[in-house]
Amino acid sequence: MPIYTAPVKDSLFILNDVLDIGRYSNLPGFANASPDVIEAILGEMGKFSAEVLAPLNRVGDEHGCKRADDGSVTAPPGFKQAYDQFCAAGWPTLTSPEEFGGQGLPHVIGTAIGEYVLSANQAFEMFQGLTAGAIASLLVKANDELKQIYVPNMVSGKWTGTMNLTEPHCGTDLGLLKTKAEPNPDGSYAITGTKIFISSGEHDLSDNIIHLVLAKIAGAPDNVKGISLFVVPKFLVNDDGSLGARNTLSCGALEKKMGIHGNPTCVMNYDGATGWLVGEPEKGLAAMFIMMNAARLGVGLQGLAQGEVAYQNAAAYAKDRRQGRALKPEDREDGAKADNLLVHPDVRRMLLEARAWNEAARALALWGSLQVDLSHSSPDEHERELADDLLGLLTPVIKSYLTDKGFAAAVSAQQVFGGHGYIREHGMEQFVRDARITQIYEGTNGVQAMDLVGRKLPKDNGRAVRAFFDLVGKDIAEAKAAGDPAGVAAALEPALADLQAATMWLAQNGMADPYNAGAGAYSYQDLMGLTAFGWMWLKMAAAARRGLDSGSGDKSFYQTKLDLADFYAKRELSGSNALRKKVEAGAETVMRVPEEAF
Amino acid sequence: MPIYTAPVKDSLFILNDVLDIGRYSNLPGFANASPDVIEAILGEMGKFSAEVLAPLNRVGDEHGCKRADDGSVTAPPGFKQAYDQFCAAGWPTLTSPEEFGGQGLPHVIGTAIGEYVLSANQAFEMFQGLTAGAIASLLVKANDELKQIYVPNMVSGKWTGTMNLTEPHCGTDLGLLKTKAEPNPDGSYAITGTKIFISSGEHDLSDNIIHLVLAKIAGAPDNVKGISLFVVPKFLVNDDGSLGARNTLSCGALEKKMGIHGNPTCVMNYDGATGWLVGEPEKGLAAMFIMMNAARLGVGLQGLAQGEVAYQNAAAYAKDRRQGRALKPEDREDGAKADNLLVHPDVRRMLLEARAWNEAARALALWGSLQVDLSHSSPDEHERELADDLLGLLTPVIKSYLTDKGFAAAVSAQQVFGGHGYIREHGMEQFVRDARITQIYEGTNGVQAMDLVGRKLPKDNGRAVRAFFDLVGKDIAEAKAAGDPAGVAAALEPALADLQAATMWLAQNGMADPYNAGAGAYSYQDLMGLTAFGWMWLKMAAAARRGLDSGSGDKSFYQTKLDLADFYAKRELSGSNALRKKVEAGAETVMRVPEEAF
Repeated sequence: MPIYTAPVKDSLFILNDVLDIGRYSNLPGFANASPDVIEAILGEMGKFSAEVLAPLNRVGDEHGCKRADDGSVTAPPGFKQAYDQFCAAGWPTLTSPEEFGGQGLPHVIGTAIGEYVLSANQAFEMFQGLTAGAIASLLVKANDELKQIYVPNMVSGKWTGTMNLTEPHCGTDLGLLKTKAEPNPDGSYAITGTKIFISSGEHDLSDNIIHLVLAKIAGAPDNVKGISLFVVPKFLVNDDGSLGARNTLSCGALEKKMGIHGNPTCVMNYDGATGWLVGEPEKGLAAMFIMMNAARLGVGLQGLAQGEVAYQNAAAYAKDRRQGRALKPEDREDGAKADNLLVHPDVRRMLLEARAWNEAARALALWGSLQVDLSHSSPDEHERELADDLLGLLTPVIKSYLTDKGFAAAVSAQQVFGGHGYIREHGMEQFVRDARITQIYEGTNGVQAMDLVGRKLPKDNGRAVRAFFDLVGKDIAEAKAAGDPAGVAAALEPALADLQAATMWLAQNGMADPYNAGAGAYSYQDLMGLTAFGWMWLKMAAAARRGLDSGSGDKSFYQTKLDLADFYAKRELSGSNALRKKVEAGAETVMRVPEEAF
Repeated sequence: MPIYTAPVKDSLFILNDVLDIGRYSNLPGFANASPDVIEAILGEMGKFSAEVLAPLNRVGDEHGCKRADDGSVTAPPGFKQAYDQFCAAGWPTLTSPEEFGGQGLPHVIGTAIGEYVLSANQAFEMFQGLTAGAIASLLVKANDELKQIYVPNMVSGKWTGTMNLTEPHCGTDLGLLKTKAEPNPDGSYAITGTKIFISSGEHDLSDNIIHLVLAKIAGAPDNVKGISLFVVPKFLVNDDGSLGARNTLSCGALEKKMGIHGNPTCVMNYDGATGWLVGEPEKGLAAMFIMMNAARLGVGLQGLAQGEVAYQNAAAYAKDRRQGRALKPEDREDGAKADNLLVHPDVRRMLLEARAWNEAARALALWGSLQVDLSHSSPDEHERELADDLLGLLTPVIKSYLTDKGFAAAVSAQQVFGGHGYIREHGMEQFVRDARITQIYEGTNGVQAMDLVGRKLPKDNGRAVRAFFDLVGKDIAEAKAAGDPAGVAAALEPALADLQAATMWLAQNGMADPYNAGAGAYSYQDLMGLTAFGWMWLKMAAAARRGLDSGSGDKSFYQTKLDLADFYAKRELSGSNALRKKVEAGAETVMRVPEEAF
């Protein structure tokens, strides 16, 4: 049975020592988030995740979800009880607006605890995980009536939300979608079509399921500009708020898939189902993107979460398992026939890579969430704009780089187990299978790269990426002035230079030939991820140095941060030049091969 | 349902145009392998693999193997019939010695067709795949009586062989093994112990199963020097060759695992089972290494095979699936609402990376097999020694790099499918799950790296690695003199220089501190793999250039080889410096972190 302990101390280090969120106490929500409150929240969720959710992770994988002939879907054993506890404790309400029954706490706190839930049980989290994004979409785009009907029960967790984009013939290319919306006389619409890959599209955890559905209103342009967004509940809601008739929508099938067996991936059939327009007609994609951006940050967090729990298990195994002797006789345990796996440098390499990625990923995810808070709530217009710019730029990087590294960490952690990692009972292979989806859904990581290079870089004449360079450059200069603890600045400076050069190259050559931008997009995204992780290690090293210099706190904790920063600086950042060269290799070798040669 | 077409033309290109195996017609076996015969063999096996074995691949994955309460194991539906066909056609006999009923053909031919079987159905291949290694071990180490009893029926496929090393508490560290052998009065031994992870340890495809088992004879040193090898048949063999009593060994359980469900991974219990010593007592590891080295080359081939079949499916999907438009208007198909995936540079990048790895892997696997033939059969002592040196050096690289790249190719190919790649029915996720084991078994890829750096590099004062550098350097010089078609020589030269520098660094710093060797081993192995693949592309580009210059043959086939070589040269080889830097980063950051910090 896999183990899991929520890394509360690490989260608090980032929130307090690295991001210093205490300085935002003037912002709505932050005032209530005193250090004590935060620590209590993280501790409680850490406990709930480890004690209630983690033991159900393998149950979900082994048992899966069951669909009955009537289309109803049953979650794995124990999930319903855990969900009731989850809601009774008020967890879904944490970061939602107080106006609708939420606690109004900062998003950055929600992200910190979200990681724990996801490490413990990704499939469980997915029953409720998309609801926050659906709420955000409704709050920004829906009229007051729709908000009053749907949002309070979604905030409490009584109802859950879903996201319906994909159809059998269209995923990334939403312009191709065929789902139709016919106006009804009462102002509602009749929605007809088939949606696939709908996570938690049907289940028995919540009383109602609120589907946000993309469709084309009859007569709209048959392309991406003709898409509207509708709210389509599983049960219609009576005027008094009680549940009314079953809507004409149903789950036609569950997909059999590689992982996340504990969550139902549904084919949803809409058969003239009653829905209501969210926002303006033919502006559906913009409304959905509010949800999608939240979801992309959440998927990045899933990648980290799988990497973290996999690492924890591999580290524990490496300490326990004895196999072979240390290469140096003086490091061999007296009287033992074999030493533990930690004596082997290559085992340490795998563990330290995973650890260095995970900790940087946690810092970047929390930093990104803080930008969400700042972009919404800062009283300073410039700070709001800067936060929004940075968030937009780095959302594809957080989604893709955290999931690529999370998958790599899970694979490495499985490798530490040797043959035992391939056997189901140890649970390592489930982490790999569950992590794999994160690179695919909410826009594949290749689609993220195109978003980064094609939209985010050129936006506002590159204002966001210039702001990013300024911030990283300023932190490098500060670190150098402070003696460069752990040597991250010295290693990050050339990586940043490679990123800047690659950016220039794309600006010049992507304009001349868009295939240059497309062919280099993925390596560019990797390079920005590498640099962003280096930036986070720079910040963490500085905070650890301050911690050590203060003379208080846990010295070995801070020293490990410096050791990991040094590891990242010396072994990871040197990869920047190879990525830059791949970007600069251009499109010729990629586009030249004729179709028939594939 | 996944597709598969055996890449016969590609195999023939390597055998004939790149390796020019016709020049070895003076060697035993090669004389019978005329171009016509080879083409016929490859064509036949390609057909059998595609038509009979590939359709059973998903059956094996879905159905798995079943163990009954009496310990008997049933293979998935259809496997027995396919195996009977496989044997009736004489496939198992192909490369075995004529003296024991084999056809005595070169190993390099066996490797070419082995790829097809593995692409079509890895789990099926594994029922018989270890038998060749077991035969090799018996032929070299066993006495004539044992050879006569066991080898002919193993050559025919009537009996299959297994490899029993691992025990619950010991995998890599065989010195810890506890299985005991007590001498019987008749010269046989009573074997008692439990072995795990025994592929095809029990099943219903063959009449008998011949287990090669590592055990310690009572009184032997309780470490790696006290290990002996035994042949332990499932059924004892009567003097007339007929099957006698059931031996006291049984399959105690089947492992539930991530993939290769179609093959039974057995816990084997030996309860005083009768076995016979193979070779000398306490020299068991050397005898087993004959089998293991063959198995390691075979596992490398498995990696390639999964990468190849995954690529084929992804390429077909990319041609068929329409999603989004080409970035350049002139490349958009008139009248279509969307273009196929091949218009997208990042989709091409994924496909071309996989393709470039697969073709280099095929060339390296066949080149390696040719060294097996030359090391056995060359009349020239120097040629035998050189082949043996090169094979020893590159066996860990072929095992690890081909499986790492095979897994990466399978993951990329799955990614091309987007969300559909995660769904079981498309079969892509099975390729990923099946490929994953290849990085783990027969010595994890980290163990391969230690073998490369710790044993193969320093052996004979570096004679093998110097020979490798000479060969690659000579080919670079030749290519440059010939105008460097596809520019591989220009890109390979600095990669080779990085490899040489990293080798020097390891020689100097690994001596001073063995942890430097351990910490850099994996990156060094990657660097040697990258260089070896580059070397293969250099050879393939030269052969393609000759083909084009000849004015005969398939021009577009040769042109694609040049295009892929150019792709590899421009986009992959530039990674060499980053790997060298990782080697040269040394052990400090890896070993410094104290155990309690993990």
